[in-house]
Amino acid sequence: MVQYEHKVQYYETDKMGVVHHSNYIRWFEECRVDTMEKEGYSYQRMEKEGIICPVVSVSCKYVSMTEFGETVVVFPKVEKFNGVRLALSYVVKNKETGEIRCTGESSHCFLNAKGNPANLKKINPECYEMFEKLQKKTSL
Amino acid sequence: MVQYEHKVQYYETDKMGVVHHSNYIRWFEECRVDTMEKEGYSYQRMEKEGIICPVVSVSCKYVSMTEFGETVVVFPKVEKFNGVRLALSYVVKNKETGEIRCTGESSHCFLNAKGNPANLKKINPECYEMFEKLQKKTSL
Amino acid sequence: MVQYEHKVQYYETDKMGVVHHSNYIRWFEECRVDTMEKEGYSYQRMEKEGIICPVVSVSCKYVSMTEFGETVVVFPKVEKFNGVRLALSYVVKNKETGEIRCTGESSHCFLNAKGNPANLKKINPECYEMFEKLQKKTSL
Amino acid sequence: MVQYEHKVQYYETDKMGVVHHSNYIRWFEECRVDTMEKEGYSYQRMEKEGIICPVVSVSCKYVSMTEFGETVVVFPKVEKFNGVRLALSYVVKNKETGEIRCTGESSHCFLNAKGNPANLKKINPECYEMFEKLQKKTSL
Repeated sequence: MVQYEHKVQYYETDKMGVVHHSNYIRWFEECRVDTMEKEGYSYQRMEKEGIICPVVSVSCKYVSMTEFGETVVVFPKVEKFNGVRLALSYVVKNKETGEIRCTGESSHCFLNAKGNPANLKKINPECYEMFEKLQKKTSL
Repeated sequence: MVQYEHKVQYYETDKMGVVHHSNYIRWFEECRVDTMEKEGYSYQRMEKEGIICPVVSVSCKYVSMTEFGETVVVFPKVEKFNGVRLALSYVVKNKETGEIRCTGESSHCFLNAKGNPANLKKINPECYEMFEKLQKKTSL
Repeated sequence: MVQYEHKVQYYETDKMGVVHHSNYIRWFEECRVDTMEKEGYSYQRMEKEGIICPVVSVSCKYVSMTEFGETVVVFPKVEKFNGVRLALSYVVKNKETGEIRCTGESSHCFLNAKGNPANLKKINPECYEMFEKLQKKTSL
Repeated sequence: MVQYEHKVQYYETDKMGVVHHSNYIRWFEECRVDTMEKEGYSYQRMEKEGIICPVVSVSCKYVSMTEFGETVVVFPKVEKFNGVRLALSYVVKNKETGEIRCTGESSHCFLNAKGNPANLKKINPECYEMFEKLQKKTSL
């Protein structure tokens, strides 16, 4: 299964004693970047070829609190992908117990070097294929 | 109108050259805290009386990119409040142009000192009233 | 006196219940940016003219702990400036009590559009003058 | 050799296109926490036994810029330890090339459950020993 592990850092906690809610949004990003790299087309390479993939929307439902020092596993799933739009969902679980920490979603578009919306299938077929394969892989 | 101003910091940007998407979630929090203080019942006071108000869910739609150095204004609105649950929406605009940067929502519950869900009306009527008034104020 | 006010945010705290030590380094940056703007030559303008001013070193001594919700005042001082190097020191105090929270320093160089070290006096006399005046102002 | 690996995240960069200088301070913390865990006495355990270890001072010299996506290795060294005070130094290198990214230091004290300075040797001999061994190990 496609997954990404994150060790919870002290600076990610707040005075409530657990992880601050904004950090889960950052873990989603860590997961996207890690997954792209593992699937053979890194975010860095995509950016070097002049494509950026901004976040259009994000959401998160907090299910249980995450403690400093625990390891969480983020499971990503490509919900939609057509070369123009990309939608992902995430489930974050405590690695040891499997307890769900949160679920979330993010949606993205692709911009070319001029900052205009672009179809990945046309401007970067190899990267397009990677996302297509990832969609199949995470839909099983 | 209820509003909160935030000056965009350099460390809030990323290599895309604009504000990283996770920071808007933090601005929503800044806005909540500032609004509570202005309305006469600060978050600090609420916490000192043993009540915490964790984020149950959050979402954000990114409309336009925010640059380093600009001032944004966050307009909060209490969408729902019954003493047990609190839902807020936010519109973030560029202060000068009024251009919308993002819209978002957050929902919250209230926990007592033992970490159990609580009804604010019972355990803290003064804080309850503040939220009720804020709801009216932001619904106009 | 040259000074910068910062309201301490919830997300700046950690599970120790007070501000995480890394955030003071960010407040120094906030202070630099704010001071440059007030003195008439903003960091944004400097960057737009192709100059960047990276941090070469930074240090901080933590004197007392900073609580969520308090307002701190950062007092900057230009310790050295010759157009090639810039060194600043900072004192951070609780606004109400004047109690010192931390003291710190940062040193900087100037890079031109090609990323090479540059003498601000030659490539941007107006910005150079601003720092020179600031040095005098903060040395009184 | 004692070392800690960190994968550089997108949200750690700023509009200069490289890692924001404040994040290195966080990597030092990540390194401390990881090292304590590997050496057999985790920071979590120490905190659970009522001891906290605040940062008294920190410094960092930035040698070269760190890019998104690279892996850095942090090499910690216990410079001083007597049960009352702890001083560490760090060297951060690019994992592939060995190029030095920065060097830094942090110093710490130990506080007991009442928030008073404490001698680790007296209040927690096992944790004391761990740091003593770590000092020897990192002095070779």
